[in-house]
Order: sequence, then C-alpha cells, then structure tokens
Amino acid sequence: MNREAIIQGMKERVFAANLALPEAGLVKLTWGNASEINRELGVIVIKPSGVPYKTMKAADMVVTDLAGNLLAEGLNSSSDLPTHVVLYQHFEKVNAVIHTHSKHAVMWAQAGRDIPAYGTTHADTFYGAVPCTRQLTVAEVERAYEMETGKVIVETFNDRQLDPLAIPAVIVRGHGPFTWGETLAKAVDNSIVLDEVAEMAYMNEIIQPHCETIPQYLLDKHYFRKHGPGAYYGQK
Amino acid sequence: MNREAIIQGMKERVFAANLALPEAGLVKLTWGNASEINRELGVIVIKPSGVPYKTMKAADMVVTDLAGNLLAEGLNSSSDLPTHVVLYQHFEKVNAVIHTHSKHAVMWAQAGRDIPAYGTTHADTFYGAVPCTRQLTVAEVERAYEMETGKVIVETFNDRQLDPLAIPAVIVRGHGPFTWGETLAKAVDNSIVLDEVAEMAYMNEIIQPHCETIPQYLLDKHYFRKHGPGAYYGQK
Amino acid sequence: MNREAIIQGMKERVFAANLALPEAGLVKLTWGNASEINRELGVIVIKPSGVPYKTMKAADMVVTDLAGNLLAEGLNSSSDLPTHVVLYQHFEKVNAVIHTHSKHAVMWAQAGRDIPAYGTTHADTFYGAVPCTRQLTVAEVERAYEMETGKVIVETFNDRQLDPLAIPAVIVRGHGPFTWGETLAKAVDNSIVLDEVAEMAYMNEIIQPHCETIPQYLLDKHYFRKHGPGAYYGQK
Amino acid sequence: MNREAIIQGMKERVFAANLALPEAGLVKLTWGNASEINRELGVIVIKPSGVPYKTMKAADMVVTDLAGNLLAEGLNSSSDLPTHVVLYQHFEKVNAVIHTHSKHAVMWAQAGRDIPAYGTTHADTFYGAVPCTRQLTVAEVERAYEMETGKVIVETFNDRQLDPLAIPAVIVRGHGPFTWGETLAKAVDNSIVLDEVAEMAYMNEIIQPHCETIPQYLLDKHYFRKHGPGAYYGQK
Repeated sequence: MNREAIIQGMKERVFAANLALPEAGLVKLTWGNASEINRELGVIVIKPSGVPYKTMKAADMVVTDLAGNLLAEGLNSSSDLPTHVVLYQHFEKVNAVIHTHSKHAVMWAQAGRDIPAYGTTHADTFYGAVPCTRQLTVAEVERAYEMETGKVIVETFNDRQLDPLAIPAVIVRGHGPFTWGETLAKAVDNSIVLDEVAEMAYMNEIIQPHCETIPQYLLDKHYFRKHGPGAYYGQK
Repeated sequence: MNREAIIQGMKERVFAANLALPEAGLVKLTWGNASEINRELGVIVIKPSGVPYKTMKAADMVVTDLAGNLLAEGLNSSSDLPTHVVLYQHFEKVNAVIHTHSKHAVMWAQAGRDIPAYGTTHADTFYGAVPCTRQLTVAEVERAYEMETGKVIVETFNDRQLDPLAIPAVIVRGHGPFTWGETLAKAVDNSIVLDEVAEMAYMNEIIQPHCETIPQYLLDKHYFRKHGPGAYYGQK
Repeated sequence: MNREAIIQGMKERVFAANLALPEAGLVKLTWGNASEINRELGVIVIKPSGVPYKTMKAADMVVTDLAGNLLAEGLNSSSDLPTHVVLYQHFEKVNAVIHTHSKHAVMWAQAGRDIPAYGTTHADTFYGAVPCTRQLTVAEVERAYEMETGKVIVETFNDRQLDPLAIPAVIVRGHGPFTWGETLAKAVDNSIVLDEVAEMAYMNEIIQPHCETIPQYLLDKHYFRKHGPGAYYGQK
Repeated sequence: MNREAIIQGMKERVFAANLALPEAGLVKLTWGNASEINRELGVIVIKPSGVPYKTMKAADMVVTDLAGNLLAEGLNSSSDLPTHVVLYQHFEKVNAVIHTHSKHAVMWAQAGRDIPAYGTTHADTFYGAVPCTRQLTVAEVERAYEMETGKVIVETFNDRQLDPLAIPAVIVRGHGPFTWGETLAKAVDNSIVLDEVAEMAYMNEIIQPHCETIPQYLLDKHYFRKHGPGAYYGQK
C-alpha cells in the first residue's frame, strides 16, 4: 500500500475513534482527542483542535511527523498533540493515544488518587491500579504545558516501574485520563473500561470505606486469561 | 420438532438475549454471556467468546453437550461456559443462565456484601437478600477458575439453604452477577431487576446508614403475589 | 359524545400515558400503571396487569366501574387497581392516578422518609414535602393489601391535613410512589418531577448533611406563580 | 440585512437553543429558557412560557424591547424574562442568557454553595468558582421576584468583583443556574459545562472530603489557552 493510502486509512480510523468517544458518553462538546502513529512511515494522525463533532470529516484529521510538525497546510492539530508525541516517543509499542474528560476518570484525577483495582472488571484490562501522576509544577506548566504533561506520565510509569501495555491508562492530576493501546480500537475500549471501573470504584469507596482490593492471584487470573501467551479469552 | 429446529430456536433466543443485555445498559464491550439448556436434547447453547455485538449473528452461537464439550467446529464458547455447566448440573429447574458486569451489581460484588431486600421492587423478584459468595481460594482459582466459580455459587445456595428459583441471582465476590431462570426471558428480566435493586440499595445505604430491610410479611406478600400457586399478578 | 367514544378516548390516553412512563425512564419491565376516571360515566380505565409494553395496545386497557369491577371480559386489570379506586373515592378532584417504581422515589420510600422541599424545582409542583406513609401492618397486608395501600395514603393526607392537589404525590413506605392530577397529562408530569426532585434531594443530603429546606415565602412564590388564581406561568 | 430578517434569525437561533437544552439532558418538561439580545436593534427574543417542546415552533418565540415589553401580540414570554433583562442591562458584553434546572447545578444551588474549581474541565470554561448568590429576602421575592433574581446575580458579581465573561454562569440560591455568553451557542455550551463540572465536583466532595481546588497557575494555564489574546486552542 502506498503512503497516501496508508495515511488515508489512518485518517478514517482516527476520525471514527473520535466519533466513538462521544457516542460512548466519554466526550462532551470537543473535549477529547485520539491519534494514531505509523513509525515506519514517520507520521502521526490526530484530531484537529476544537472542531465540532457534527461537522468534522475524516479529511479534517491533521497529519504530522513524529515530532509533531505539521506535514501540510490545514487545520490546527489538537492542542494536546505534544502530550501524544511524548507518549509515542517513550512507549514504543503504543500505536494509539486517546485523551478524554470522561467524568468518573476526571473525578479521580481531581481527587489526585490512583484508581484501585477493586474487581475483575478492572483486572480484565488493567494489571493493577491506574496511576495518578503528581501535580505539574509552576515551571512545567509555564514552560511547555502539553509536553510536560506527557513527561509526567512517562515519569510516573518509570518511577513505579509500570508497563504501559499492562496498564494502558493514566490519570493526570487535576486534569483527566489518557489511554492508549497497540491499536486504536483497543485504546477506545480502554477509555470505555477506564471510566466504567472509575465509576465502580467511586461507588465502592462510598459504600465500603475500607474496601479491599482484588487479591493478587485473582488479578493475575483475570488479566492473564485475556493477555499474554496463556490467554484463552476470545477467538484465535 | 426435530433436533435441528430446536437448536436453531435456541440459537435465536440466546442471540437475542445477548443483544438485550447491552440494550438494557447491563453490558459494555463483550462483557456478558447468556446460555440456554435443553436437558432432553442434551445441549447447551451459549454466546461465543469475545465477539463484538455489532457483528455477532445467531449462527455464531456455540452448541455444546451437557458437560460443555463443543458439538461442532466453530467459534470458541464463552470462557465462562464451565460456570454455566455447573449451575445447570446443580440447579435442575434452571434452563437459562446469564452473566454480566452490570455496574451496580458488580459494585456489591466488589464490596463483598449481600444485596439487602430494602423494598418491594426487590421482593417482587427475589425472595430475600441476593447472596454474595465467599472469595475463591488461590487453589480454586489456579485449578479450574470458571468451574470453581460455579461450585462456589452452588455452595452458597446449599450452605444458606436457598432455593435458586426463589432467589434467581448471585453475586460472585470480587467479580460480578450471575442470574438465571426457568426461561431465558425470565433470566434477562432478572438481570435487569438485579442491577436496579442493586442501585436502589446503594443509594439507601448512603442516605440511611441503618436502613431497615423490608418486613417479612411484606416480602411474603409481594413475592407470592407474583410467584407460586396464589399468584394473581399478570395474565393467565 | 357517546359513552363508547368517551371510553375509547380514555383508553387511548391511558395507553399513551403508560408508554410515556418507560420513555421518561420511570418504569422498567412492567412496573407501572396509569389510570383515568370519568365519574359522570362511572368508569375507570387502567392498564392490564403484567403485559409487556412492546406488545400492549390501546384496546388492551381495562374498563371497570367506580368500585373496580370489570365491565367486560378481557385482560386482568393492574393488580394495583384497588389502590387507584380508593384514591379516586377520597380525592374527589383527582381524575388520574399513576404508580411507578422510579428509582429515586423508591429509594426514599425504602428509607421511610418524606422528600424535603429543598428548592424551587420542588416548589413549582409540590407545595411542601412529599409525604411518606407509615408502614402497613401485618393485618392490613394480609387482609386486602392493595386497598389498604390506598387507605394508608388517604390516612396520611388526612392526618397531616394535606391537599392532594397541592401535593399530588406520595411515597408508600417500603414500596414506591403514587402520583395523580386533575388530568392524566398532569399526573405524568408529576411522576417525572417527583423522581427528579427525589434525585436532587438525595444528592443534597449527601453533600450537605444539614441542608436547609426552601424558605416558606419562596415556596409560596414558586408554587403560586404556577397554581391558583394568581398564577402567571404559561399561556392562558 | 433588514430588521425583520435579523429578528427571524434570532427566533431561529433561540428556538434551536431551547431545543438543544433538553437534548443535552439539561431540561425536563418546560423548565428552561434561552434568549438573545440585539442591542442595536433594541430587541430581545425569548422562549414563550410553558409551551411543550414537542409542539413549539420558531415562530412562537417572543419579541420584546430592551425593557422586556412585548413588541407584538402573541404568546406570553417566559416568566423569567425580567431576570434576562436585568442581566442584559448590567452585563454589557453578554448577548445571550439561558436558565435551566439542570440537576447537578440545581443541587449546588439548593446547598447554597459555590461550585469549586476542582480541575481543568472547570478551568477551561470558568475562571474560578461558579458563585452562588445569597438568598433573596421576603421583600425581594414579594416585590418583583424575577427582576430581583437578576439584581442579586448582578450584586454577586459586583460584590465579588467577578467578570461575567470570565465566569459566564451563576447559581441562584435555592433555585438553579443561569448561564450566558457573547453568543447563544456559547451560552448553550456553558450550560452543558456547568452541569458537568457540578456533577464532577459533587462526586469529588463525596470521595475526598477535603479535596483541593486546582492551583492558580494551572487554572490560569487552562483558562488562557482557550480565552484571550494568548489563546491557542481551536481554529483561527
């Protein structure tokens, strides 16, 4: 397939993913953005900034190089592009990134807390608590806010020695969630799961103030029946 | 009716029930499975594992014998099939089983608590609290997780001397709900009711920390006006 | 208009009102019933018992006399008919009655508490707290449950000296809401408002444990700008 | 464009905005009103009072002068018109006003509390806490309730030295939200954002009793990347 056809396919997937987010109740107004990378081709395709979903077209998707430089005249990219770029640079197996303000994940971000793994719904997708980053400093916010947002996510995964494919989501302190995946379809699913487990965990903390997290052996069982060489969920 | 026609009817009902669950807001992504048994014919029909609801067809439903062995080449069955098999083996009047991760029922499962009978909405369908199983042990999870899930449900009903038709639902500790019924239509209804009363009970516990459960005579009245020889709800 | 045409009109309105309730999110499965009375004609029209909303037709509506006796062969009436009959007997200006299990109103019923008037949304429709009845006794439940449900509602309004048109709703302890109105359209609206203010009051009690109710002069202002001789809301 | 054509355009926008509110889940029954002003032309266009959304037409929108006097025979204007008039008189750059009873904003109004700025979702639209007015006095309510509602909003912004364009929303004590904007489209968006952040803040206060508000430098960053001369969000 030639370069144009590949980029065209990326635009259509990125467009569809951006529409899937409000449809799943995760995005209001223009509060979300999805992107996909093709490292061999050296391109990232991302949603344009602030374009209403009702009028947005696949052709409006913005194409950049791996550093986030626009490759053609057109619409402005999502203002969160630098965050996506940093994640792609450091999370080498990640091919798609999504940002939303889905309300339950945002609520945990505002509370500044990790989302605990309270059950198998969480364990099916996230191998442990979904981490919340530290607050960005004044200097970071003033210097290059969106890029520093990416860096604090990477710092969080490095400091805690987390595998971004085993826990394909983060919540940025005071802001909201970023999710990712090996494919855009998986990243969309991860956004859906994240908000669902964020809501369940919220309810659990209310009703059971000292709720226990899922035991490690059950976390292992559920995560590994869906992921890795021993997985037996789904079709071959 | 010949065997093929009966199985075809089962497939269509199982397919429709699986679609009814996300429509009722009880299932996201592929998190649910419904099955039906025909004991005379010796077959169980169940949803395939991990197939998106948008592309799933009635013909994709998987047919097994009463031990859960596939009767034909095709898609993998739901990974929860062994749980269904155990329930069918021990709950002899049950002809349909459903598993979901509906959020309010899951929340109670994560809290590790029975869902108390706080009102007549609960009593119309469940003759008492919906039980929560004990946590599975390491050995059980590692040995045969899905089969042991079925066994701990049966154990819960045996130990507490509960009638599975009078309380056609359970929540598995840390995991989520299973419901059942004499027919698949009833099992779907029971899944809907379960999540609704789980949500109501959640709200009650927040606003009224020492909320009283429904008195026994009112529980009796509501349950028996809909069930058993003295029932007078509905049409003949 | 002749008797048949009037009854036909009643059936169509009752049918439409019963469909409006699940559409407004107030009724799941078959948990609701609406009726209308024509005192001059001596008839009540009510939903049949336990008929799925998807297949129900206007012709299925059940016609009774003012004592609740069926006037023609056909489907069984809603099992709650005796409650409606008692309300019509004692609330003389009420021409329509509705029962639902809408979740927020049910939650207050399960908590056994009146719904406080916390704001103008409540005051626009209900002139004060929506009362919760006392628990029915064993004898009442065993004797004539549905009729006694009506009687305890009437008792509640009499004992507290409440005007059923000024507060066109009640919650029955452990059970759920009944609403009513001079017309069926108003009764439907009152069901919608009741669940909405029940949810708002629930949230208020969580976030503000000693939340103040609306001052009397503001309750008066909002109620009377919509009701009575000085009303100026809406069109003439 | 001539006067009639301009007014016709206003009617169509006001009509569309009024329909957008229930579609966004912010308005039930007839509980909302939107208006637009054209100061040069000396007209305000507002929703009529108490007309069901299903039958309302653009031609039903009511046209008044800048003091709120009807300019033609027709339907009664929204009873909240005097509130809109006062806001237009004092907030000179505001060209559209909206009132709803959206449930989460109402809940904060009933609690009598400002909505704190807990995160960037809030900061993207509101430059600080959304203020709650004081309770109106008996005299104010009895004198000219709707006009006094407008005056207490203006008083709140004056006393706290708030810029109505930087914080384009208020919650009136015991009542509910008013939002506004330079355009009607922005005012609709502000209503959507207000209820969303009201819900998020509600959840935060439950789970994190002493939740910190967003730091000033992050509030600045998010607000000013969308507003003012340094804004870089969206398209030119």
